[in-house]
Amino acid sequence: MPMSDRTRVRRLPEKAVSDRAALDAVLDEALVAHVGCVDPAGYPVVIPMACARDGDRVLLHGSTGSRLTSVLAGGATACVTVTLLDGLVYARSAFESSMHYRCVMVFGALTRVADDEVEAALRVLTEHLQPGRWDELRAPSRKELAATSVLALPLDEWSVKVSDAPPDDPSSDLDAPVWAGVLPLRTAGGVPVDAPDLRGGHAVPGHVVRHPITSSR
Amino acid sequence: MPMSDRTRVRRLPEKAVSDRAALDAVLDEALVAHVGCVDPAGYPVVIPMACARDGDRVLLHGSTGSRLTSVLAGGATACVTVTLLDGLVYARSAFESSMHYRCVMVFGALTRVADDEVEAALRVLTEHLQPGRWDELRAPSRKELAATSVLALPLDEWSVKVSDAPPDDPSSDLDAPVWAGVLPLRTAGGVPVDAPDLRGGHAVPGHVVRHPITSSR
Repeated sequence: MPMSDRTRVRRLPEKAVSDRAALDAVLDEALVAHVGCVDPAGYPVVIPMACARDGDRVLLHGSTGSRLTSVLAGGATACVTVTLLDGLVYARSAFESSMHYRCVMVFGALTRVADDEVEAALRVLTEHLQPGRWDELRAPSRKELAATSVLALPLDEWSVKVSDAPPDDPSSDLDAPVWAGVLPLRTAGGVPVDAPDLRGGHAVPGHVVRHPITSSR
Repeated sequence: MPMSDRTRVRRLPEKAVSDRAALDAVLDEALVAHVGCVDPAGYPVVIPMACARDGDRVLLHGSTGSRLTSVLAGGATACVTVTLLDGLVYARSAFESSMHYRCVMVFGALTRVADDEVEAALRVLTEHLQPGRWDELRAPSRKELAATSVLALPLDEWSVKVSDAPPDDPSSDLDAPVWAGVLPLRTAGGVPVDAPDLRGGHAVPGHVVRHPITSSR
């Protein structure tokens, strides 16, 4: 990984992970990234966007109104942060209590995916967010593709931080009369809800019931 | 809500919600916020931080290394974004497929909670992140409080966006031979894991097993 000044992990650097597999694992589990850019007026804006890794880049789809458009036009740096919350760490003091998480930051210039690549990008996004769905759906129309904006950011400059250790209490606290440990957290799927205008009695597909996000970790 | 140019919802403004109760509801369910600031070198940085609402402000705790310190010193504007992912919307086309989410953005200058208020702020954060835990723990030491940095942002300038509608397909797609609907998503708790150095046979407290995040929505 090319280590730049802005991807150097400054706070708790012992939690930094530098292998590409760790980066991919976080991105491949995330459905939403928080995209930061600097507004032309100079203040920061952080927007949630649907995300999917596509080889050596991350694709982003979502709100691409005026805020991002101007930033894109200028080729300014963005910061794409993905955080997976994995658990709550109950230590013997508030000071040592913390969270389990995996966090990725990627820096670089966002670009708009070229017109003739939008359909392929939309397929990658759809299959990441709703695995198994693409082949059930009609192909996008030319009009839909023209109205779809997908952004891309190369995985060139990034950092990964993983917090997954048990409580780390000083020995003076180990006899405190409290439980200590970790409450694991994960994303769970509920019971699928039919669209009110559903016709034809189509059953919920297995890929919805068994969406990978609902069984991860 | 004071509507400023930067809190005006530009993209899909019909999803904007303007009542304070909606803001509080999102903040009161969130454990992590994504905090955006502009680095002195001019690029955006987005950092995940633990969060809790404290009346008319949001408290933030986490990585407060050099990146944020300089921004704080200057009183520059930050953007604190909280996103709760509530579901995946399976429409009859990729184009109409989307997500259910609730998203809050708060703008303003972050300040550091004053020394004599850090303990109270830490209590609010701890009781939000681990409800029922504070009174089980020893009081923080003076040294711990001195090493704890809590940031605050007033709830003055904010927006809330809620996406919770069923698939909205054009009538020409309603006879497509596919299921359509929503897969609800929520955060679930796993089986608590004892700390390897747990002594005294303390049982997992009920407030851990029944953490509110694991039963929400």
